Amino acid sequence: MTKEIDIITLFPEMFKGVFGDSIIKRAVDNKILEIRLTQLREFALGKHKQVDDSPFGGGSGMVLKPEPMFRAVRSVLQNSNSPSRRIIITDPAGKTFNQEKAKELASVDWLIIICGHYEGFDTRIYSLADELISIGDYVLTGGEIPAMAIVDAVARMLPDVLGAADSAETDSFFDGMLSYPQYTRPRNFEGMEVPEVLLSGNHAEISKWRQMKAFENTMQRRPDLIFGRD
Amino acid sequence: MTKEIDIITLFPEMFKGVFGDSIIKRAVDNKILEIRLTQLREFALGKHKQVDDSPFGGGSGMVLKPEPMFRAVRSVLQNSNSPSRRIIITDPAGKTFNQEKAKELASVDWLIIICGHYEGFDTRIYSLADELISIGDYVLTGGEIPAMAIVDAVARMLPDVLGAADSAETDSFFDGMLSYPQYTRPRNFEGMEVPEVLLSGNHAEISKWRQMKAFENTMQRRPDLIFGRD
Repeated sequence: MTKEIDIITLFPEMFKGVFGDSIIKRAVDNKILEIRLTQLREFALGKHKQVDDSPFGGGSGMVLKPEPMFRAVRSVLQNSNSPSRRIIITDPAGKTFNQEKAKELASVDWLIIICGHYEGFDTRIYSLADELISIGDYVLTGGEIPAMAIVDAVARMLPDVLGAADSAETDSFFDGMLSYPQYTRPRNFEGMEVPEVLLSGNHAEISKWRQMKAFENTMQRRPDLIFGRD
Repeated sequence: MTKEIDIITLFPEMFKGVFGDSIIKRAVDNKILEIRLTQLREFALGKHKQVDDSPFGGGSGMVLKPEPMFRAVRSVLQNSNSPSRRIIITDPAGKTFNQEKAKELASVDWLIIICGHYEGFDTRIYSLADELISIGDYVLTGGEIPAMAIVDAVARMLPDVLGAADSAETDSFFDGMLSYPQYTRPRNFEGMEVPEVLLSGNHAEISKWRQMKAFENTMQRRPDLIFGRD
């Protein structure tokens, strides 16, 4: 079954290059994934198609109005009959995205992603969402890059998206550890040598070395992946 | 002084839509920021411009070769004379990006960002980097989306990039808390009312209400921002 993703944004142009190159394009070409972009402004009312307005109570900046977003979401909800769906808003107040969440979202047939915006939403818009997701503790100008990150992380979990069948399984974090160091030709690059064991042909030794190095790498750089954050 | 950012990637097309729309374009147009994209493949050797090769020690997948990346970085280093520079690789093994890091990188005159790749790097490539940065604990197919996130977070910290002078200061996380709820017209949207206090014109009351709501919001959704992770 094709996975469906709708994205509601004021900047649909931002997505074209990203989804037109990379693994996501392959998934779309192979009909594993269907991505639809909706321009929020098309659902604004009036001649000026105004999507924002000044905040009640004062303050600098503008706030995205509720009507265009409610109209956009109601329109997007006509796009599919898929019963398993999730409406997500990318927002700094959301739960932090991680690999577990990517796996969970990969199992939902239809995702509707509303891109956050630096101007902020009228709070009533949040009532549309099943879930708020943040991709990390940093401030971005909009939710478009977070939406790309979510789509990319989810897309690569779909069956048949990655080239090698087992690539997703051996990637970082999949087994909860960072990966081991990789080497390819040349054996000696400007004095930096490939470790002997990798040239030995001894598969048991190579496997042991890689496990040890992955563990060392993780202990050194990200001990929280082994011991937890608390 | 113009901030300079070089990005080394196999997918420069991915960046065009993102940097051609959004706040980053404004910063580039105003010469606050200069972004240069370098196609790694141009630095590959031989007729086939091969950038990857199979890993020593076996295993599925391919590994990015050291020579093209060393050549690309050495070429990029000719682009500027700026003494304050940082070479970053976007990599799941990196330190997790956050607002503090964005601030720090905003103060470096010249950033060189090497985009990670799902195939993985020959480990010797890491010796080129001053720093490895991860944008979060999820696996992406490449370092392009992380590079976009870093550029966006850093660009909006530069002087004169955001429209309203104080917008960066009032955004989420800036004061270590999530923001308060915002409302704009209409007062009543499908039965959802704007809180009376915001219509009162009493600035002291509005300010008190907003502070309380920001605190409530943070306590409910992200208590770690108040109490820390440990």
